[in-house]
Amino acid sequence: MLTKKELIDYCRNAYENYVPHISVDCVVFGFHEGVMKVLVLKMKNGGEWYLPGGFVLKKEPIEMAANRILKERTGLDKIFLQQFHVFGDPDRSKEHFEMYKDMLPAKQNWFANRFLTIGYYALVDFCDATPIQDELSELCTWCDLNEVPELRLDHSLILKTALDTLRLQLNYQPIGYNLMPKEFTMPELQKLYETILHKKLDRRNFQRRMLGFGILNRSEQPRKGGAHKAPYLYSFNQENYKAALKEGFKGGW
Amino acid sequence: MLTKKELIDYCRNAYENYVPHISVDCVVFGFHEGVMKVLVLKMKNGGEWYLPGGFVLKKEPIEMAANRILKERTGLDKIFLQQFHVFGDPDRSKEHFEMYKDMLPAKQNWFANRFLTIGYYALVDFCDATPIQDELSELCTWCDLNEVPELRLDHSLILKTALDTLRLQLNYQPIGYNLMPKEFTMPELQKLYETILHKKLDRRNFQRRMLGFGILNRSEQPRKGGAHKAPYLYSFNQENYKAALKEGFKGGW
Repeated sequence: MLTKKELIDYCRNAYENYVPHISVDCVVFGFHEGVMKVLVLKMKNGGEWYLPGGFVLKKEPIEMAANRILKERTGLDKIFLQQFHVFGDPDRSKEHFEMYKDMLPAKQNWFANRFLTIGYYALVDFCDATPIQDELSELCTWCDLNEVPELRLDHSLILKTALDTLRLQLNYQPIGYNLMPKEFTMPELQKLYETILHKKLDRRNFQRRMLGFGILNRSEQPRKGGAHKAPYLYSFNQENYKAALKEGFKGGW
Repeated sequence: MLTKKELIDYCRNAYENYVPHISVDCVVFGFHEGVMKVLVLKMKNGGEWYLPGGFVLKKEPIEMAANRILKERTGLDKIFLQQFHVFGDPDRSKEHFEMYKDMLPAKQNWFANRFLTIGYYALVDFCDATPIQDELSELCTWCDLNEVPELRLDHSLILKTALDTLRLQLNYQPIGYNLMPKEFTMPELQKLYETILHKKLDRRNFQRRMLGFGILNRSEQPRKGGAHKAPYLYSFNQENYKAALKEGFKGGW
């Protein structure tokens, strides 16, 4: 929680630079070798947990705001961020309002505004990212998806909605471009899907369906080394991957 | 375009009742017996065309705002509206600003604000709807999807994005609940899909895939009358339909 002086500075800065009533919250899923985590922050002084977020600069496109926030919290740049939902319950930011209402008159109090938040999600390799706390937090860290504590405001709902959307999206859009190495085996890609879906998939069905999407190129050379039959290596077909991001997979209606 | 007096009243009313910086625009697709249309309005005095839209009341959830706007323009209630995208380019509402900037100082001028708009789409039977113009328009009407004129601001982009989303959605979520009669034949349902996709589909593949989704009940009694073999009648399985709206079709990963 901010002191009165900090609050006054915070609000003055906010009104000067940002669009009121709008915020952006980012659900950053981190994946690495079969483990999936999510990026969370912890408020100063033993406070609550929350998702990385921020506001939109007065002249800034919202996609740029989401990318700036992601970069500020992870150091990562040029990551595919997907807008997935606007959370617009009139009382969703009431807790902020209650916290600061006695310190500053409503007219000057940024937190007296109703805020709608635009949810974005990203999927990154958590080994590439460096969690960086913000001015209100004492900690920014990766948390196992199954061990996320209760989050403040409606952030638990935002996280759940992002995860539902990501899982649904696996059925009609490609993922994994910034998660897999340049070349990978089919079992490595399957592991990514299994981790996100939190369930085992049938090896043959996975391969058949994934090849059917037409977004993979198979390398001529199988992977070298190892005692067993060398597995085929795949890479993403950039052109088809991009088209499928835009239009959905082939094999639709 | 509003006169100065009208503008002053409009802005006073807007600041009193609505959340600044946020608007809602609705893409209302109308379908009836193989014809697909979209609801558009025409500004007074021979002005430009635009999509039905409005603002969010200070205490109103955004879904309720979208439903209220839809009801105001069509008389229709309890229609499934799908939030599909936020359009947040900083200059998207500049045209409004330019139009009124000399009439009223920026502080009192509602249109001097940057507006982000939340896009919703709905699919209705256009025979059930009664288009009703708003205070700025001289006409509200159904327009053939292939004959929509250039729309003002970024409304052409909003329409295109809604149509892309709807077509993509056909691959992973059910549609048609408020469009089909209680009981319908498979060719009648196929016609709906063909109209939305603007292409012919193979009869057998359509039937196989649609039955595979598990959202249809087949009636014991085929349709009576007619010279040919009576076709089977289907209805939507409410429970599975709702589940598929939420979680996507069975047969995903």
